[in-house]
Amino acid sequence: MRRPGLGISTDVGHANAQRIELRRYDLVDELIGHTSYTETLLLAVTGRRPSGAQVRAVDAVLVSLVDHGMQPSALAARLTYSAAPDALQGALAAGVLGAGSSLLGSMEQAGKMLADIGARVRAGTGPRVAADYAVARILDDGRRVPGFGHGLHRTGDPRAIRLLQVATELGVAAEETGWLAAVGAAIEERAGRRLVVNATGASAAILLGVGVPWHLHRGVAIVSRTAGLLAHINEELDQPIAPQVRSALREASWLDEERGPAGGHDA
Amino acid sequence: MRRPGLGISTDVGHANAQRIELRRYDLVDELIGHTSYTETLLLAVTGRRPSGAQVRAVDAVLVSLVDHGMQPSALAARLTYSAAPDALQGALAAGVLGAGSSLLGSMEQAGKMLADIGARVRAGTGPRVAADYAVARILDDGRRVPGFGHGLHRTGDPRAIRLLQVATELGVAAEETGWLAAVGAAIEERAGRRLVVNATGASAAILLGVGVPWHLHRGVAIVSRTAGLLAHINEELDQPIAPQVRSALREASWLDEERGPAGGHDA
Amino acid sequence: MRRPGLGISTDVGHANAQRIELRRYDLVDELIGHTSYTETLLLAVTGRRPSGAQVRAVDAVLVSLVDHGMQPSALAARLTYSAAPDALQGALAAGVLGAGSSLLGSMEQAGKMLADIGARVRAGTGPRVAADYAVARILDDGRRVPGFGHGLHRTGDPRAIRLLQVATELGVAAEETGWLAAVGAAIEERAGRRLVVNATGASAAILLGVGVPWHLHRGVAIVSRTAGLLAHINEELDQPIAPQVRSALREASWLDEERGPAGGHDA
Amino acid sequence: MRRPGLGISTDVGHANAQRIELRRYDLVDELIGHTSYTETLLLAVTGRRPSGAQVRAVDAVLVSLVDHGMQPSALAARLTYSAAPDALQGALAAGVLGAGSSLLGSMEQAGKMLADIGARVRAGTGPRVAADYAVARILDDGRRVPGFGHGLHRTGDPRAIRLLQVATELGVAAEETGWLAAVGAAIEERAGRRLVVNATGASAAILLGVGVPWHLHRGVAIVSRTAGLLAHINEELDQPIAPQVRSALREASWLDEERGPAGGHDA
Repeated sequence: MRRPGLGISTDVGHANAQRIELRRYDLVDELIGHTSYTETLLLAVTGRRPSGAQVRAVDAVLVSLVDHGMQPSALAARLTYSAAPDALQGALAAGVLGAGSSLLGSMEQAGKMLADIGARVRAGTGPRVAADYAVARILDDGRRVPGFGHGLHRTGDPRAIRLLQVATELGVAAEETGWLAAVGAAIEERAGRRLVVNATGASAAILLGVGVPWHLHRGVAIVSRTAGLLAHINEELDQPIAPQVRSALREASWLDEERGPAGGHDA
Repeated sequence: MRRPGLGISTDVGHANAQRIELRRYDLVDELIGHTSYTETLLLAVTGRRPSGAQVRAVDAVLVSLVDHGMQPSALAARLTYSAAPDALQGALAAGVLGAGSSLLGSMEQAGKMLADIGARVRAGTGPRVAADYAVARILDDGRRVPGFGHGLHRTGDPRAIRLLQVATELGVAAEETGWLAAVGAAIEERAGRRLVVNATGASAAILLGVGVPWHLHRGVAIVSRTAGLLAHINEELDQPIAPQVRSALREASWLDEERGPAGGHDA
Repeated sequence: MRRPGLGISTDVGHANAQRIELRRYDLVDELIGHTSYTETLLLAVTGRRPSGAQVRAVDAVLVSLVDHGMQPSALAARLTYSAAPDALQGALAAGVLGAGSSLLGSMEQAGKMLADIGARVRAGTGPRVAADYAVARILDDGRRVPGFGHGLHRTGDPRAIRLLQVATELGVAAEETGWLAAVGAAIEERAGRRLVVNATGASAAILLGVGVPWHLHRGVAIVSRTAGLLAHINEELDQPIAPQVRSALREASWLDEERGPAGGHDA
Repeated sequence: MRRPGLGISTDVGHANAQRIELRRYDLVDELIGHTSYTETLLLAVTGRRPSGAQVRAVDAVLVSLVDHGMQPSALAARLTYSAAPDALQGALAAGVLGAGSSLLGSMEQAGKMLADIGARVRAGTGPRVAADYAVARILDDGRRVPGFGHGLHRTGDPRAIRLLQVATELGVAAEETGWLAAVGAAIEERAGRRLVVNATGASAAILLGVGVPWHLHRGVAIVSRTAGLLAHINEELDQPIAPQVRSALREASWLDEERGPAGGHDA
């Protein structure tokens, strides 16, 4: 491959006047009309074409993350769209920037924990020993174990239960969901109480199982969430909430009483 | 629905401690494991569950837009990731902000043109007359007809040909692709030369045909492109290009010769 | 200047191991400790070192734009900071993206109108005739004249009055504020009622008068507003509003009653 | 203050139909025309009106950070502006998102280190002992001491020297610059070599000395940098670099040879 100019190259996609390739597959002949978006996303990110079962498992993860109601990031996207409707990309970007939240960010933490366990397992440690070690290190640091526990669903996060069921049925991420169970057992032994797997933990196990590295888990969640943000942006056009929000905000900085000046210059 | 506090509500998604709904479908029982991401995206955005054929047609559109090689927006995402790897959301947002480009923005213009034709057709005008009117207005304004013409592929954009073929096979967007053909005929009659439909035009026709309003077309393209941006961000970790780019940029602002001061204060 | 690699160059800033230049001024010897931020901003953007009076006039504009209370963009910044406190740049960016608002965007429109009048005046047309032409064209298009009128302050926007007073005292933007007055007279004659100059119009006249092209006026407003966003981000740390906002949003998508499934698959 | 609706309030700014306040100062009567932008920024962020010397010291910091030539963040802003010139806010936001870089982020680290030393000093520890403790902890963690060392300027970063000189002349941040010197002595004793203070360290000391908390230092740097980004955006309009960059990027993903398909579906 010639590399004039910047001396850089990419393995993601290539094109010339005759042909467009994504990861060396012909976009027109091999992908458009043959592969779903989810399959193509996995191909683009991992460089490998996933199995049908892997695609369906990742579809389950993406579907579980599309929307969580009127979240702060949805509000940020709607307010930004209302202020600058000609620049829809800005509204989506504003929503995306809210994705360091406990939910989306903690998937990354759960993925990292499972990847660490996986590295030990592949070096010969048993899964349960590796899980004990990981949990001990996290709890000793005073942190919460990512992927476990839920404020509302104390007897089981229904999304997590469903995601693990789907993965099992499809035979996807068997090892990784096993490590997740080992982490649960390690928590129970050490902390003396049972914490349920949450949707974040189940999603991280599936993504890791299909070859998405943990440092991209937050990114996959964001890809999914852009659909929900777009739904909110569309709704803002038809049933705007920006006027009520603006009105409530005006109250927040309303100047009530007459006051004198705050004081003279002190220098 | 009670509306305390802000007095706002949404029809996109709802939740309580027992149940999570997207567009009134139960997320756990009816969507996760049952619907693909693309189907769920359409459900979220349009509020209606699409047919299987509609899903496959939109998959084709999304797949065609995932990546276009090392575009400026991919570079912006990679450089931002390199500068702030802990905030992957910022890198994706920087890439998303580049999506006002001729490609992604012109899909919106093509969608608007087709929607205008559709409004006239539904009011009783024949498709060809409506297309003639739309083309005349655009050309009289000195603008280019969106969705037509291509710098490289003068005898036919292979992605557009494939997308229209997929739509025809699936029986999706028959009306809208017909209007696109009518626009092509109108251009040929008026300008005296044949312009090929491009991928943008074909995508807009399909999206409009499945019920995505034109003002969201750019947004759908961005949803798709986030997968390509994520692939580039991943590659930046393994095969970074930021160092070479930084080095080339340093040359661009390198101070070569010894010079005296630019001059004294002029006021 | 040698241009290897990308073959690009810049006139904004240069550096080598010994010396850093901004617009060919030595950063260390001629700028740091000698020039204010506002003076340096004008130097960077226009390439010319401004007079002291110009700096003070632009300071007045920037000060008038720092904060407008709890605006939607301040809320977006605060919510984003709350979700991702490690990435303060993301919170500022989310706030910046709300700057297509009527206020900040309309400064650009006012600047463009004054620049158009200026071009005619320099071509020999009298200011009042040029203003009449500009106003007629805007009103004929059914648009509002930018820089004029105010929802609350019908007898005069106090910021605009003050900004014009400052400009007059400093002898800055005399021509441009004159064109603004001509526009006011043209509106009164044509529309039969007196509209007050607003802060946007006064700011645009001053910026144009000191050499900032109209297409950057929105950008100058954003530079100023980042200080207000930073103040809100700081306050969010000490007196967070995100919890109340999240709580109000949860109400907005709360699932109240038990309902059956939304319906079966329609395809 | 009444708190209907959201039940939130702010101390940054207030307004009603007659009066606009920033930190309880009357915007029109006390600020516009009286205070510089830098003074107003400090008032907005800290809630206190700074002394004239403090304003001049912060001006020096802001001026030193306006531009560093054709940095990756300047390139991201220019490419984004080129792709979406109607949404200048998006171009500025894309540039802002690159501000997690070693330079801007390390100011935050330097500020935190000095704040930690300050807390110990106020609790009765001597400055040098506090500095020894801070340096030991950083070096034991295998990290670099923030605010010290420079790739090019091994005998002294000229910006740092100038900033410290300005602070000394103005009598600003005497304590904080003293702690910085103590850190330098601690490094020399422990590591056996002298490291120079860099611009980041000097800036952090000054900002901390005028009352800007360390977690906002990155934000202050971004406020300053927006001026440089705006200068680059302006230059992009007149002397665009986007075409050359796009051309170099096209090379990076150019498809050279004819190849067969990458392979069949593997699952």
